[in-house]
Amino acid sequence: MATSKESPKRAVVLLSGGLDSATVAACLIRDGFQVTALSIDYGQRHSVELKAAAVIAHEVGVNEHRVMKLDLRAFGGSALTDETLSVPKTKDSTDVVHADIPITYVPARNTIFLSLALGLAEAVGACQIGIGVNALDYSGYPDCRPEFVHKFGELANLATREGVEGRPISLYTPLLNLTKVEILKLAHRLQVPVGKTISCYDPDEHGTPCELCDSCRLRSQAQRELCL
Amino acid sequence: MATSKESPKRAVVLLSGGLDSATVAACLIRDGFQVTALSIDYGQRHSVELKAAAVIAHEVGVNEHRVMKLDLRAFGGSALTDETLSVPKTKDSTDVVHADIPITYVPARNTIFLSLALGLAEAVGACQIGIGVNALDYSGYPDCRPEFVHKFGELANLATREGVEGRPISLYTPLLNLTKVEILKLAHRLQVPVGKTISCYDPDEHGTPCELCDSCRLRSQAQRELCL
Repeated sequence: MATSKESPKRAVVLLSGGLDSATVAACLIRDGFQVTALSIDYGQRHSVELKAAAVIAHEVGVNEHRVMKLDLRAFGGSALTDETLSVPKTKDSTDVVHADIPITYVPARNTIFLSLALGLAEAVGACQIGIGVNALDYSGYPDCRPEFVHKFGELANLATREGVEGRPISLYTPLLNLTKVEILKLAHRLQVPVGKTISCYDPDEHGTPCELCDSCRLRSQAQRELCL
Repeated sequence: MATSKESPKRAVVLLSGGLDSATVAACLIRDGFQVTALSIDYGQRHSVELKAAAVIAHEVGVNEHRVMKLDLRAFGGSALTDETLSVPKTKDSTDVVHADIPITYVPARNTIFLSLALGLAEAVGACQIGIGVNALDYSGYPDCRPEFVHKFGELANLATREGVEGRPISLYTPLLNLTKVEILKLAHRLQVPVGKTISCYDPDEHGTPCELCDSCRLRSQAQRELCL
């Protein structure tokens, strides 16, 4: 007698090549999802992270890795896409969390990336969209806050065929309330190839991190705490 | 004595080359906005509409017209981007409004386009985003409904620097509750070059409409009613 087989649960994950999104991908795989990773080639000055994304996609074991080209340099206004602006760097070891929105903020980036992931989720029949947003040790971006994530989830189900037909697409944000130290611990537990992830906003062409930007400092701070 | 001059109100409008978005652009100009038009080259089979968008941008008098490339064909699943799927056509003159979501629906298209417009609005300092959604004579797309528009407006102000800093970005949807006949009347009143707009989902390479797809039928129906 043939046994009935449930169709696999599918998810899309936004994979940047950094530590956080790599950890989210590994969480989805741990939770039994078939995963399509989506990386966006948006003209970032740290495009070496796209190479890291391909390596990580393979090593954590996603089913498919897609790269979409979208030139956000056309908008300007961010140090992450505009070569004429400098990524802020300091050796100051004080807390990295900002009161203001920093110049590395890319206008509406997470909204744009989540929208693309939503389109892909509809197309491949995924019920979850993974994103490595993190509300504690973050750099002051408005589109990393829990209220933003929650609102996008509401929008997703008004925007899509799935939502209208009662098959909701949810956001999957396992890092939202973790500290960077907790994320690092989780990554190690899930055997994420942490050494191959690139978090730096301004690495050299070999992927060597600058160690001075916000993202490097957040990561180093956490690594030091973990080893204390 | 120098008189103080208010800085101009800025808006972004999503300009497809069709009748509806051309009319929204004209409404924004009537209302005194400096307008940046944004067209998306998303791999649509009716790419001749991008040429129409450039003509319309010029004729209605926007300040700037930007075209962004984003290949949504990678997602598949829609007759508007997939050459292997047929655009449904009929000579049936009955009502075009569908109960189901038709195959011309592009996954998450309006969410993606509005997100891009939101990024551009932040970059150019615009406080309004114009989009030609229309809830009455529409083709059954989930992302044309008032509740979707309303939710995106809420999201916009959680997602952006402007929202956080108390300078909200709003959606501008003057056609939302108009019939197609009312839109045509408005377009004529605002001297939109209606004959140069392309609404057809599957025109030939010269832009000649098929007259049989949902979009053509909606427009013809309205034109007939207007002339009765």
